Amino acid sequence: MKLDRHPSNPILKPNPNNAWEALNVFNCSVVTSHGLFFMFYRAQGVNYTSSIGGAISADGVHFNRLQQPILSPQDDWETLGLEDPRITYLADESRYIMAYTAYSPQRITPMFAESKNLFTWQRIGPLVVGEDNKDHVLFPRRIRGRYVTFHRRPPGIWLAYSDDLRNWTDFKPLMGPRPGHWDDNRIGAGGIPIETEQGWLCIYHGYDQQKVYRLGTCLLDLEDPSKVIARPKEFIMEPEEPWELEGDVPNVVFTAANPVIDGTVYVYYGGADRVIGLATCSLKELLEFTRRG
Amino acid sequence: MKLDRHPSNPILKPNPNNAWEALNVFNCSVVTSHGLFFMFYRAQGVNYTSSIGGAISADGVHFNRLQQPILSPQDDWETLGLEDPRITYLADESRYIMAYTAYSPQRITPMFAESKNLFTWQRIGPLVVGEDNKDHVLFPRRIRGRYVTFHRRPPGIWLAYSDDLRNWTDFKPLMGPRPGHWDDNRIGAGGIPIETEQGWLCIYHGYDQQKVYRLGTCLLDLEDPSKVIARPKEFIMEPEEPWELEGDVPNVVFTAANPVIDGTVYVYYGGADRVIGLATCSLKELLEFTRRG
Repeated sequence: MKLDRHPSNPILKPNPNNAWEALNVFNCSVVTSHGLFFMFYRAQGVNYTSSIGGAISADGVHFNRLQQPILSPQDDWETLGLEDPRITYLADESRYIMAYTAYSPQRITPMFAESKNLFTWQRIGPLVVGEDNKDHVLFPRRIRGRYVTFHRRPPGIWLAYSDDLRNWTDFKPLMGPRPGHWDDNRIGAGGIPIETEQGWLCIYHGYDQQKVYRLGTCLLDLEDPSKVIARPKEFIMEPEEPWELEGDVPNVVFTAANPVIDGTVYVYYGGADRVIGLATCSLKELLEFTRRG
Repeated sequence: MKLDRHPSNPILKPNPNNAWEALNVFNCSVVTSHGLFFMFYRAQGVNYTSSIGGAISADGVHFNRLQQPILSPQDDWETLGLEDPRITYLADESRYIMAYTAYSPQRITPMFAESKNLFTWQRIGPLVVGEDNKDHVLFPRRIRGRYVTFHRRPPGIWLAYSDDLRNWTDFKPLMGPRPGHWDDNRIGAGGIPIETEQGWLCIYHGYDQQKVYRLGTCLLDLEDPSKVIARPKEFIMEPEEPWELEGDVPNVVFTAANPVIDGTVYVYYGGADRVIGLATCSLKELLEFTRRG
């Protein structure tokens, strides 16, 4: 099974009119609300500093961008940028949590921020400090009373748990690279885990010894996501289009967003760290593919 | 009593990077929700065709604009543009109604549109067809079971009533120009009427024989807005700043938005049909000034 690329791809390109997004627009989060798609994307100016831009769409394909970033570097943790936003809606708390990577010459830090309106954000704080850790993604509800997040300790995907989104404990490895496969070098989480009756359906990225990024899936136990129910050997997407093969970093498809609308999974992904593409599939088919393992 | 101009004025200017808003940005509506200000402004490109642009702000002063219009000319009624949006939130129906003027070589038409999310709009239809009629503003709730709208039949402000926002009846004159005063030539409604215990507090515009636009107030009976309780002789604002005195049309302050936040009235206004300004006042003071008449 493979994802279907949208014919309008790439759906977002760098905008030379705005210095902050003149070079690259790529890894993004997409939240749906009131029948609209709200995109939050990593944007780089020619100095390679990343900000988070915002855009709105009625169809998920044609986005109307805000002229200024939603979030720009603000403190010493972020002097080189805010990267790779992943936004989780906590429905029972009516608030949004953004996981993003703060980047500075001193450190790379997996951070959380919160918002009630998607436009104004308050920094919460880091998941962990002083190690190479990113690709963190908060699950959309508490599990057994605790918040759960993916994160990445090289070369694999880990879990961590918290009561308050501030103090994180029980760091546990979940999945690692698989020797001889497309994901035999490093892996990291993708968008927000999709809750299904069969478990948490997750799309993740991996790359091989040639540093070709691909997307794959796994299924985790609903009440204990440290249990991997299924992890197919096949990937669901690999770089094929010119703008996936070449850009700022070659051979990259990287997703941080997989909202489900009317049974269709919308996979938004950065293409070669330069543009944003959209690929879709049926949730039912993706779940069956993943369960077959 | 006079409104206080904000020191950051003008808060919005034409943007030469976008053809559709390169010439003028002026008359606007501002809706508050989730602690944010959503502005919808009339924008003109160098061909003088008007579109409705959108912008978001956390403080009501610094706005982040969408790069493409929210509404652009779509049909024969609008070939020369959509003008002067005024957005009313009908709380008990959880929907927004936009009153706007459709402009074409054949006619000028006061129109209504509706939205659940402020971003995607469906045209409802005209208030009336085939006459010089504009400056229509829907009241924020039904009164005695019916929707009520201001509109302008030269030279004065009229009322009209409807059960469904489609069929309008009982067109009645409300107020006209006052000979010898600042509003002795023509008048028209401003933003959404503000409901107070003393009545509907309204800001309106008027101009004199020299075509100098000013803003004034009136108070209407809560359950029968055809009854004018008070109408001070003094205006609350007149053109003073260079960008109010000169622009595309000289000597214009024109408001279509007066949201109230924590007891402060935020009056957004077009300055000389070229830029957007903000002036504020205390709701309590404005009401007392108006009641004193």
